[in-house]
Amino acid sequence: MNQDARTLTLAEIAERLGARLKGDGERRVSGLATLRDATPDQVAFLANRAYLKDLPQTRAAAVLLAPDHGEACPVTRLELDNPYLGYAELSRLFDPLAGRTPAGIHPTAVVADDVRLGENVAIGPQAVVESGVELGDEVVVGPGCVVGADSCIGPGSRLHANVTVCHGVVIGHRAILHSGCVIGGDGFGFAHDGGRWHKIAQLGGVVLGDDVEVGSCSSIDRGALGDTVIGDDVKIDSQVQIAHNVQIGDHSALAGCVGIAGSTRVGKHCMLGGGVGLSGHLTIADGVQVTGMSLVTNSILEPGIYSSGTGSMDNAQWRRNAVRFKQLDDIARRLSRLEKAGRSS
Amino acid sequence: MNQDARTLTLAEIAERLGARLKGDGERRVSGLATLRDATPDQVAFLANRAYLKDLPQTRAAAVLLAPDHGEACPVTRLELDNPYLGYAELSRLFDPLAGRTPAGIHPTAVVADDVRLGENVAIGPQAVVESGVELGDEVVVGPGCVVGADSCIGPGSRLHANVTVCHGVVIGHRAILHSGCVIGGDGFGFAHDGGRWHKIAQLGGVVLGDDVEVGSCSSIDRGALGDTVIGDDVKIDSQVQIAHNVQIGDHSALAGCVGIAGSTRVGKHCMLGGGVGLSGHLTIADGVQVTGMSLVTNSILEPGIYSSGTGSMDNAQWRRNAVRFKQLDDIARRLSRLEKAGRSS
Amino acid sequence: MNQDARTLTLAEIAERLGARLKGDGERRVSGLATLRDATPDQVAFLANRAYLKDLPQTRAAAVLLAPDHGEACPVTRLELDNPYLGYAELSRLFDPLAGRTPAGIHPTAVVADDVRLGENVAIGPQAVVESGVELGDEVVVGPGCVVGADSCIGPGSRLHANVTVCHGVVIGHRAILHSGCVIGGDGFGFAHDGGRWHKIAQLGGVVLGDDVEVGSCSSIDRGALGDTVIGDDVKIDSQVQIAHNVQIGDHSALAGCVGIAGSTRVGKHCMLGGGVGLSGHLTIADGVQVTGMSLVTNSILEPGIYSSGTGSMDNAQWRRNAVRFKQLDDIARRLSRLEKAGRSS
Repeated sequence: MNQDARTLTLAEIAERLGARLKGDGERRVSGLATLRDATPDQVAFLANRAYLKDLPQTRAAAVLLAPDHGEACPVTRLELDNPYLGYAELSRLFDPLAGRTPAGIHPTAVVADDVRLGENVAIGPQAVVESGVELGDEVVVGPGCVVGADSCIGPGSRLHANVTVCHGVVIGHRAILHSGCVIGGDGFGFAHDGGRWHKIAQLGGVVLGDDVEVGSCSSIDRGALGDTVIGDDVKIDSQVQIAHNVQIGDHSALAGCVGIAGSTRVGKHCMLGGGVGLSGHLTIADGVQVTGMSLVTNSILEPGIYSSGTGSMDNAQWRRNAVRFKQLDDIARRLSRLEKAGRSS
Repeated sequence: MNQDARTLTLAEIAERLGARLKGDGERRVSGLATLRDATPDQVAFLANRAYLKDLPQTRAAAVLLAPDHGEACPVTRLELDNPYLGYAELSRLFDPLAGRTPAGIHPTAVVADDVRLGENVAIGPQAVVESGVELGDEVVVGPGCVVGADSCIGPGSRLHANVTVCHGVVIGHRAILHSGCVIGGDGFGFAHDGGRWHKIAQLGGVVLGDDVEVGSCSSIDRGALGDTVIGDDVKIDSQVQIAHNVQIGDHSALAGCVGIAGSTRVGKHCMLGGGVGLSGHLTIADGVQVTGMSLVTNSILEPGIYSSGTGSMDNAQWRRNAVRFKQLDDIARRLSRLEKAGRSS
Repeated sequence: MNQDARTLTLAEIAERLGARLKGDGERRVSGLATLRDATPDQVAFLANRAYLKDLPQTRAAAVLLAPDHGEACPVTRLELDNPYLGYAELSRLFDPLAGRTPAGIHPTAVVADDVRLGENVAIGPQAVVESGVELGDEVVVGPGCVVGADSCIGPGSRLHANVTVCHGVVIGHRAILHSGCVIGGDGFGFAHDGGRWHKIAQLGGVVLGDDVEVGSCSSIDRGALGDTVIGDDVKIDSQVQIAHNVQIGDHSALAGCVGIAGSTRVGKHCMLGGGVGLSGHLTIADGVQVTGMSLVTNSILEPGIYSSGTGSMDNAQWRRNAVRFKQLDDIARRLSRLEKAGRSS
């Protein structure tokens, strides 16, 4: 996208989003903001009823909203059934990074002679691309990235600065890898013998499907034998750990600080809240949601929402209750005894 | 600080710390250690009553301590009301890194032509500083760092090796960013439609106030619209995740492995223990402390100490109690029935 | 290992592993796989009774197994008392990385003049090795790594891409440091005075024993005074945080996302499950195991298995029980009253 394209008329926006325009289509806008913050050259959106209160006062040039909220809108309307989706699409039109990286290999990048490059590949300063790598069309390798030997990165993928892709990793189309993430570090595998640990070389790889995003400083470890496999359209937040031979089904989303132990298989369309932990060798069905910081130690075979933990409370109250938790089995037994005594009396 | 300054007389130390010297001020010392480990050319400190037992045997040249512990001290005293603060100040005088990095741009660094540099800036080997960046006086950009386009780093800030600051990030004075941290990676935002995820470009930035420290491998994500904002004097440990549009008030401290979900606002002078998780869209009042690994899913509107979890115990005991936790609502109902039966009998 | 050595005869394998060969020792194999996936030019292994069902159909050239499973094996047997250990050893023979990195300093690496290099050291592209560093024989410093001033890395150690070793760190023999990990970032130390934080310079270092492995994106912070000390044969997974002045005893293993707060001492032969948190200033005895995501806030003085948390369950069930947890002390008191009432009636 060139600089010029970064202002759009409302009619252009309506056409790109498939929205119904009610108002002045010639007006040009240069950005996107919330109802409350939008200036007269920006578009706002209403995707959550909680913000309906901000609609009457908005100064936005236009508002993306669902048809049933149109009446209350004081400015030009862009009506859509899913205004949050419209917001997502519009946000990408105004993304200052989009198209900003010129193709070409920076002179300080170190690129092995046998690397296969698609069209319009960009490799940033101080990057390293090792022997045998294949980079598809329009791939962007950011500054300071390292792409290990024999890895393959699909067309349209972007590695932000300081990403590490280890050797023999396969990444699909349109991946977005954020800074500091590491794809293909060794899994954690050791045999125990004679009171010490003996390393198991991690001979598998990592395969990422299409449209995968991985957040900053996240780790996806390579398989021990066979690969760690991340499905299509899987979205992984920052500070996540995915151990060796884990499989994540298509369209699942993992929030920040999630940790998944070795060989666990997560289904499709799953959502793991922040800080969730899954033990190793589990099977998690399609459509499972786990709420934040829950620990799952057994397979989950039915879709649904799952949780663990106690909820937070005032520390003094918590101390009293936490002490009682340690007595809980005893409490339950005493209760049963009382019930029996009641029945027999 | 030059090499020479790394030895100091006790009188010099007393003057710098504003301590009362009781003993030989001419004696030179070259470092700092605990009461137990200090050699005769080092200063020790007593800031915690638990270590009072180590005072009589110390071999230190002098001890930083509160006036009421002076009597028991066998060597020269440096009396201060807050000896821990004195220790902090003294530690910085002996920091081998202080002043060690010479100003200048390493020939292997890649610095865009239009970067604005203050006085005495140091840019290390293999670093990348992109177009439009502004680096204030005395800024140190360590080896392998990447500073993204249009970011601004305030005077006296230090980026240790391999830090990533993404585009459009604003950092105040005297920041300390440790290796591997990432400031300004994309927030985790997607619209769901048609069974798949649609990326929301993260158009906001990150603003760090003055005197912020960020630990190694921590992530602070950029805002979706509007900025993620970290106040002045906020201290963030290693392995922390701060999601998009979070706001952290001045003087708050976040221990290792904390995770804060999107748009949550943490007040001033808060302290979050290691591994604490805060759900998204919460408000946490000023002066709140949350103990380690607690999950907070509701706003906290009063200062105080908050906790969740069960405390740890022997696994066999825990198994029995954890089973009972799943029956807890049933236990409570049965107890109520017994109480009613007792009252009616 | 040269390319040629990457195929081995079964007799060669038997000799290297000390296994008893029952079958055709001349057959050459080129890799390792599971019983189910192995092709006729690969070796498989049976180390877990759960996979015994896959033995009769295996197409492997040979199977590593314990003598008592030999009868059921349809192909050549390599009998060993600890076949998992045999698998570990064999995996290393087939590791494509082993011996692959040629010695030498890449022309883009920045290596200070006074660095002391052992025999056959390899320093990758874009790496930085600062003044005063010592690298032992056969050390591999991967692309993009930074080794800070005065650090010392023992013979046979390998730093994968983009590792950061800060100044004054001491690493033993045969360490494996995975991408993105940071050894020697500042500990989290501040004195509080006048409503704000005053940094305590972290003057200690980090000492890693021999045969230590550290996973991707993990942090081991330097000591405040004195060192953070990791014993021999300690294995640390990805996304782990180890705070200042922690000590970890020999042969302990820490799974992903573990966090250990300052000055805690973990014994030898301990195992910490994924996401475990240890508070600061604790003592954990030798031989302690802590199950996943448990929080330990008190010292553990006896070997054994320890746990905290509630186990996960259906969210609706969990909500009811979590509410009751907040009433647990009250429940216990009411139960006691009922018991007393029962005894007195």
